[in-house]
Amino acid sequence: MKAEIISIGTELLLGEITDTNAAYLASQLPLLGIDLHFISTVGDNKQRLIETLNHAWQRSDIIITTGGLGPTEDDITREAIAEFFQEPITIDQSLVNQFKELFKRFNMDMPESNIKQASIIPSAGVIANPRGTAPGWWVERAEHVIIAMPGPPGEMQQMWSNVVAPQLQKKYCDAIIYSKTLKTFSLSEAKVGELTRTYLLAKNPTVGIYAKPDGIHLRITAKAETLGSAEELVNKAAGEIHEILGKYIWGSDSDTLEGIIANLLITNNMNLAVIEAGTGGILANTITNIPESSKFFRYGIVINRDDLKREYGINDDIIEQYGMVSQEVACKMASAIKAKYETSFGIGLIGVTEPDELNNKLGTIVIGIENNAGKHGFKKIYPGTRMQVKQRAAIAALYELKNILTEETKCT
Amino acid sequence: MKAEIISIGTELLLGEITDTNAAYLASQLPLLGIDLHFISTVGDNKQRLIETLNHAWQRSDIIITTGGLGPTEDDITREAIAEFFQEPITIDQSLVNQFKELFKRFNMDMPESNIKQASIIPSAGVIANPRGTAPGWWVERAEHVIIAMPGPPGEMQQMWSNVVAPQLQKKYCDAIIYSKTLKTFSLSEAKVGELTRTYLLAKNPTVGIYAKPDGIHLRITAKAETLGSAEELVNKAAGEIHEILGKYIWGSDSDTLEGIIANLLITNNMNLAVIEAGTGGILANTITNIPESSKFFRYGIVINRDDLKREYGINDDIIEQYGMVSQEVACKMASAIKAKYETSFGIGLIGVTEPDELNNKLGTIVIGIENNAGKHGFKKIYPGTRMQVKQRAAIAALYELKNILTEETKCT
Repeated sequence: MKAEIISIGTELLLGEITDTNAAYLASQLPLLGIDLHFISTVGDNKQRLIETLNHAWQRSDIIITTGGLGPTEDDITREAIAEFFQEPITIDQSLVNQFKELFKRFNMDMPESNIKQASIIPSAGVIANPRGTAPGWWVERAEHVIIAMPGPPGEMQQMWSNVVAPQLQKKYCDAIIYSKTLKTFSLSEAKVGELTRTYLLAKNPTVGIYAKPDGIHLRITAKAETLGSAEELVNKAAGEIHEILGKYIWGSDSDTLEGIIANLLITNNMNLAVIEAGTGGILANTITNIPESSKFFRYGIVINRDDLKREYGINDDIIEQYGMVSQEVACKMASAIKAKYETSFGIGLIGVTEPDELNNKLGTIVIGIENNAGKHGFKKIYPGTRMQVKQRAAIAALYELKNILTEETKCT
Repeated sequence: MKAEIISIGTELLLGEITDTNAAYLASQLPLLGIDLHFISTVGDNKQRLIETLNHAWQRSDIIITTGGLGPTEDDITREAIAEFFQEPITIDQSLVNQFKELFKRFNMDMPESNIKQASIIPSAGVIANPRGTAPGWWVERAEHVIIAMPGPPGEMQQMWSNVVAPQLQKKYCDAIIYSKTLKTFSLSEAKVGELTRTYLLAKNPTVGIYAKPDGIHLRITAKAETLGSAEELVNKAAGEIHEILGKYIWGSDSDTLEGIIANLLITNNMNLAVIEAGTGGILANTITNIPESSKFFRYGIVINRDDLKREYGINDDIIEQYGMVSQEVACKMASAIKAKYETSFGIGLIGVTEPDELNNKLGTIVIGIENNAGKHGFKKIYPGTRMQVKQRAAIAALYELKNILTEETKCT
């Protein structure tokens, strides 16, 4: 099955918004075993949309449009599809009544312009939109399907997962596709590639490798007749890759490092305090993106190196012996903050993030982590801009904390 | 002039990356007075790219492609254009020599595969790529232009601004387009729209209104025969809108609040310390995204409400009288941190960012700012998720600090 996406909206052609809908749908279609051959973007212009539908109809079986289903004059998707099929538009009174109900719930009168969104043509089935007043259309003619969905990503994605994806699966899927993403940190893309080479060359499951801000991801995808067999193929490969990469794999699918750490700390009734120099609070900020972080995040300090020496007793001896940007200093920071706030964990982080600072050591970071069982020091060097080094420093600290937490909780 | 963009790359059709190049080019073309009618995305498939070039050639004067200029087998843009024009490909030896020089600088031998990137056809002019080994092509035939640029955004954008945009302007621009963006904060989109209604309805300059994380932006765009007259039209409207919106406008174009504040603090030899409760360090993290922030950012503390009471003497009386989430408490925080670190400014920030916290006060934030001239308190309520409220809280604190800084420095 060949699919094609048409994104509709003049704001896309003016570069005022980026087309995330196309990227979302593009990532979903492979899971149904449907190949995407083209994405087209057109403005709110009926003739150009009809021309684009015409091209698409000639070369694709499934045409998915997003956008242009709103209530205003410049929303022309319904009209273009009707004209393309030469079918008359009528108003579906039951939809009008639904809209009126919806407005009533918010104590509002329905504006007249919304009636336009209840338009329908004989070949179109209505796709419900629980999040708004723009229903979708499912139009089948001559072995082709046109699926029209609204542009707001929240509405479109819900319509996709509730109705469109299951219906496409039922209609076209002779095979089921199942995918799992393994997330690694601390190894280069080349190293992960080298270690998993046989999997990268395999046909089913296939494995793709992607560099992301939180490390190198491996996406394992299998095709089979049933979901069970597809899952089995994926899980077998995932298990084997786990054997190879070990602790470098920190999570899978929608996991985040801060989410995993939050779970581990809350479950084990632990808490932490952090002190950062040069990374400007990004570690505290990342950890506290978790809504329940007040349960375990006790204290954060963003300090400069002079105050660090003064307030935390980093004396000249230790600096002379190891240097300011050293694991030893980071461990001293961790130890001090842990003692001061009596937490389960103390983390010290120093990053060299200003260009030309400290004899071109830009990108050097050191991490100290202390808990009741002992202390751990790490040193890493990352390329990139100040913001990239800050981000990488926070991820690195969370990754090392996660490893220590997992080791700890394993033993209890 | 009608333009069309073709984005090339199977990774776009798999949803592995979002097409930011198309959005960038789409935002640049209006500045040259060139209309964009279509964006198409195709995979690394020569036949499909030729088919797409064929459609584009029939309906557009200027065709801009990005991607597919790399050294590997699946990079097929050069081959597709050559086949579309039925022109033979040869290797440009001077390009090969340039590549070899480039590799030598990094003490590396040039891989054989890079020779492919020195391909050329008779109708194509080479566009230099100072950032990589993928030169662009400028191909003119029969009143049409095909411009092929590399996919990595950094390389593409530099090629665009150094060569392609000036060349297009020289060739096609009978009118010059000039634009300026004014950035506001603290007013709703509806309010900004109401206050600037006559400008939003005007034809030249036109004014567009956009909701962004750092406030409501107004983009003023004028068309004229010379850059001077276009600038004059834009600056006149900008001046009038400044009169209307006053201090709600905090910056323009590529300004950021943290950048403006950094300049003001460094120029006036001032520094600051911040203490945050509930916002997890996002204020410190945002301010320190500026590479020179160590010159003025003295100290940051991320604290919870219990420690705040204990360590900063927020006693029960003040909480009973005003509540914990009050301007009074935020001002006390600001005052304490300013005194402790002897800074020019102290900022205290409390945000209610966990759902169901404090009787559904989610989204409430209070800000206290103290300098030698006095103290200022602010209270705001923002809708959204924890991460959105955190972000909005940081922006709000920076916005108020900027206003105070501007007032202060105005008097000296």
